[in-house]
Amino acid sequence: MDQPSRSAGTVRPGGRTARVRAAVLEATQNGLVEHGFHGLTMDQVAARAGVGKTTVYRRWGSPAGLVADLMTELANQSSSHTDMGTVEEDLRANALSVQRALADERLGSTLQAVIAAATCDEQAAQALRSFYLRRIEEWAHVVDLAVKRGELPEGTDGREVVRAVSAPLYYRLMVTREPVTREDAEASVSRALAAARAGAFVRP
Amino acid sequence: MDQPSRSAGTVRPGGRTARVRAAVLEATQNGLVEHGFHGLTMDQVAARAGVGKTTVYRRWGSPAGLVADLMTELANQSSSHTDMGTVEEDLRANALSVQRALADERLGSTLQAVIAAATCDEQAAQALRSFYLRRIEEWAHVVDLAVKRGELPEGTDGREVVRAVSAPLYYRLMVTREPVTREDAEASVSRALAAARAGAFVRP
Repeated sequence: MDQPSRSAGTVRPGGRTARVRAAVLEATQNGLVEHGFHGLTMDQVAARAGVGKTTVYRRWGSPAGLVADLMTELANQSSSHTDMGTVEEDLRANALSVQRALADERLGSTLQAVIAAATCDEQAAQALRSFYLRRIEEWAHVVDLAVKRGELPEGTDGREVVRAVSAPLYYRLMVTREPVTREDAEASVSRALAAARAGAFVRP
Repeated sequence: MDQPSRSAGTVRPGGRTARVRAAVLEATQNGLVEHGFHGLTMDQVAARAGVGKTTVYRRWGSPAGLVADLMTELANQSSSHTDMGTVEEDLRANALSVQRALADERLGSTLQAVIAAATCDEQAAQALRSFYLRRIEEWAHVVDLAVKRGELPEGTDGREVVRAVSAPLYYRLMVTREPVTREDAEASVSRALAAARAGAFVRP
């Protein structure tokens, strides 16, 4: 992932390298949405992106390499945490952004395909883990601020609160295969906050 | 799934039909654990089970049909809900049984393979949904009893409490790809119960 060609793309944003990457990642996402990870082939991505196969093989190496770079890009694009003044509003913004992502046909299918890929491919699993741990870390900040403001008990584990807000939404999506609604997102925030206020997220 | 041959198996437990089914489901689970759903083929399952291909095609129809029947069998084998006298003990028994299943190499891999399969196969998704909704329904009973005993507020949604206990464990397994420990299971129970006691699971 550190080839000079990639760095060149970073140095000249909007240059050829950046355009190639954008086309390849778009083709990767289309492939995932339509056929899942197991239907994703390097040749098909190259053809759909209008990019030479050798370029795709050289820069990304494998379908898992494509998925890993796509997750990096999605992480860069994802909305950063808010700071609305109360932890309830911040966590609500977080939960609703997760709910919208999961309910979005394209983004929801992409995330499901990567979660499925991660069950049998270690590189996809790594990409998934980094993507979520980065988001958890970022949003945990709003809980830390709430603790400083005295809204939540001293010692509350912000990362665990953020995991607890997202978990029921992913559980419905992936495990019980039920719709994920705004009401589910709001209920998840109320429940995580009630537990946090009762001290159930204080580190032991 | 309602062919006379299956009913015959039901009528004569331990008979040839039951033995064929047991061998085929064992081969199905081995295939899922080793190669995931996408590597599962009818011919391979038939060969490993030592059963004729035509029998496997006739009775199960497709790899998704095999997975659906395997989930039915796992649901029949799964431990039923406890009644230990306090909701905390009951939910702890539930969380630890989920944690053991997810941490078990064979069962955890099987569940992951089926969750992955469900992202791209409607029959696998149906089997998954039935499996979990049945378990949720059954364990919700311990919450209903706790409400009757006055341990939790009137109107507490037992199914949602049970979902809330499991969700963080599946989230770690499938999404953040982190280990799922006994401590995670115990923390999940404490948090769900703290929220339930605060009334956050009362139906609106």
